[in-house]
Amino acid sequence: MSELSDRILAAVDANFEAQIELTQALIALPSKRDAEHEAQRFMADALAARGYAVEEVATDAKAISDHPGFSPISVDASTAPSIVATHHPRIEAGRSLILNGHIDVVPEGPHEMWTRHPFDPWRDGDWLYGRGSGDMKAGLIACVAALDALRSIGLQPAARIHVQSVVEEECTGNGALACMVAGYTAEAAIIPEPEDECLVRANCGVLWFEVAIAGKPVHVREAGIGANAIDAAARVTASLRKIEARWNAEAPAHPHFEHLDHPINFNVGRIEGGDWASTVAAWCRMQCRIAIYPGDDPAVRAAEIEGHLRQDLADDPYLSSNPPTVTWNGFFARGYVLEEGTEAEQTLVRAHQAAARAPLQTLTTPGYLDGRVFVIYGGMPCLVYGPLSEAIHGFDERVSLSSVRRITGAIALFIAEWCGLEAIDVDEA
Amino acid sequence: MSELSDRILAAVDANFEAQIELTQALIALPSKRDAEHEAQRFMADALAARGYAVEEVATDAKAISDHPGFSPISVDASTAPSIVATHHPRIEAGRSLILNGHIDVVPEGPHEMWTRHPFDPWRDGDWLYGRGSGDMKAGLIACVAALDALRSIGLQPAARIHVQSVVEEECTGNGALACMVAGYTAEAAIIPEPEDECLVRANCGVLWFEVAIAGKPVHVREAGIGANAIDAAARVTASLRKIEARWNAEAPAHPHFEHLDHPINFNVGRIEGGDWASTVAAWCRMQCRIAIYPGDDPAVRAAEIEGHLRQDLADDPYLSSNPPTVTWNGFFARGYVLEEGTEAEQTLVRAHQAAARAPLQTLTTPGYLDGRVFVIYGGMPCLVYGPLSEAIHGFDERVSLSSVRRITGAIALFIAEWCGLEAIDVDEA
Repeated sequence: MSELSDRILAAVDANFEAQIELTQALIALPSKRDAEHEAQRFMADALAARGYAVEEVATDAKAISDHPGFSPISVDASTAPSIVATHHPRIEAGRSLILNGHIDVVPEGPHEMWTRHPFDPWRDGDWLYGRGSGDMKAGLIACVAALDALRSIGLQPAARIHVQSVVEEECTGNGALACMVAGYTAEAAIIPEPEDECLVRANCGVLWFEVAIAGKPVHVREAGIGANAIDAAARVTASLRKIEARWNAEAPAHPHFEHLDHPINFNVGRIEGGDWASTVAAWCRMQCRIAIYPGDDPAVRAAEIEGHLRQDLADDPYLSSNPPTVTWNGFFARGYVLEEGTEAEQTLVRAHQAAARAPLQTLTTPGYLDGRVFVIYGGMPCLVYGPLSEAIHGFDERVSLSSVRRITGAIALFIAEWCGLEAIDVDEA
Repeated sequence: MSELSDRILAAVDANFEAQIELTQALIALPSKRDAEHEAQRFMADALAARGYAVEEVATDAKAISDHPGFSPISVDASTAPSIVATHHPRIEAGRSLILNGHIDVVPEGPHEMWTRHPFDPWRDGDWLYGRGSGDMKAGLIACVAALDALRSIGLQPAARIHVQSVVEEECTGNGALACMVAGYTAEAAIIPEPEDECLVRANCGVLWFEVAIAGKPVHVREAGIGANAIDAAARVTASLRKIEARWNAEAPAHPHFEHLDHPINFNVGRIEGGDWASTVAAWCRMQCRIAIYPGDDPAVRAAEIEGHLRQDLADDPYLSSNPPTVTWNGFFARGYVLEEGTEAEQTLVRAHQAAARAPLQTLTTPGYLDGRVFVIYGGMPCLVYGPLSEAIHGFDERVSLSSVRRITGAIALFIAEWCGLEAIDVDEA
């Protein structure tokens, strides 16, 4: 390891308590969907204070709805902007870079299931707890901290860098897409999602849809002549499990997925239906999610689901003549495979080895990643690589602080090699 | 038919348009659970205007919670009073009577499923439409109208009569129970529930319960290690269907139920669960209802359900160690059988024959009735007998106006024979 690398990692270490404090302050802002405004102001202020040129990028349906990466915007879509902070070097000498993280967090669920308040982050040994700690405020702040560490030893990237804090990663991916459509591109991107210090080689696409079922309510004394929409919903779920099984059986045909038992997960994440215990339920709605393989066209897979339901429910005494309504109301997003052996990847291999003293592993992940925007539509390598976490989307979500320190070091070293470094102008410093 | 009977039925006919108007005005007050206050003021005013002594009876948990007919009171229990209007004759000559109806209506469901607004009642041919038209505002007003008809020809009952407009019939039965505990009893009761002009010979008891399931939320990419509470809820429902089947198989052992295919209906009437399409659902709650046979002890049947779930879910990989929580949160009510051949029944047989020109049929109904309060705990015959209706608890609920006219006539004739009649004091008239 070079003497410069040592200095950079030492600077990351020296700044680390301040980095944790910044992370905790961000976790304390509950940036659930369409409630990211305050957290985005916090990010914009933090980035502007560091001298970056900060811009807001709205998720403007008009601007992106014709883009092939667009996901349908539903009524509860975020109205908060994405934030893009740009660093310009004095002399463009290296390769440009996007450091991207998402600000949105998923709902925290019943508070009584948490050990402490999910938006009052707390530390316990190596773990930092709180909703969004792992997914992915620690990673987002790691991008800022990597640059802070360089700055603390009088250095800055010798190339253009955009730090992006985007919305809508947990539901549509339209925030990252809007930033790209707005013109923010680079020669590589890093997204420090909580990937256990591995590099994501391949990931699934995701479709979101609502299944709505109208029942035929009657007094329960006449239950035989009514059709309970809640019961019918369970039959639709069972039918969708067949699609899930069929798509999982395709895994051997998909490189990077052939070794996975169950890459395609179907999930009913939310349900509501009916009005009264003694009334046969007149309606039921389910919010569903299913994965697709890289290369799959969301429109083709969506049509396959609709066709399957029509065919599979043809024998259902009620649903055959009262079919469920399927609405595509969120993610309509492709998966991607990261090409092997790019210079960006080789740079990360070296940076990770130096920071973590371990070889970089790769993995395939069956969840959505904004990486697809950069890889598929931006034509650049996107390195999704971030800290060890547990229970993201669950209770007592947490991120490993020692892991955050390692990946922050690796990102700082990546910047040093990829972008090159220059001395900060004395007037600026 | 006697000349008096003719006069009474003619008076019912003469008053009938006014009766429909009163019924419509009552339907227009959306008296869903804990929103009955305005409708009860309307009833109290209408009854006071007729000269009855009107009292409010609160559903006071302290007063009734030790009563064997008590059902658990949940947080959404009604705070509206029941209304009791009492007629005292000048001279007590006949037998006392309670005319009982419930003011509460069940939720109307999605408005777009109705032809017109559910609380803007409308007539089409013989049908009067609106939520609560059949169940049971037409019947409740029929009690008032039967007395009005007698009054219009200068007559009033020669015995004490209580007209009761009670709350909580659709969820606990505590409204009628509170009136009985408050001391209102009589030698017979009539409840004009929508029973297609039949007399209810037997009916089921009903249990309400909530099933709450805690899941183990994780990101859906790790769905295999999470347990989706919505999926688990469907497995609990399937298990409860086994209880339903077992109890239905007992029907041959229960007099008045032996000829019914499916007297025991289990219903999941409401469900909610989960927070996010891409999060394995952390929680799910179902509002359930099941029937029990007359003679069944609610506590014994409730214990049977809990024991069944423990045993039946013992092999479930998730629910065996994370059992559902069952909470008895409403009806905890016995069924009853109306003894055959009472004088009250014989009186109704004659009254119905005269008013409807058809013999009185009896039936067994698999739904809850407040009749159990009077029969089991009041020791009096309770004649549940009311008009033809369609789609109670459903969309476009409606009641047959010609049927309402017939049962109003029958009730008036019943009063004339059971209570006897006396001339209204000239000063009062």
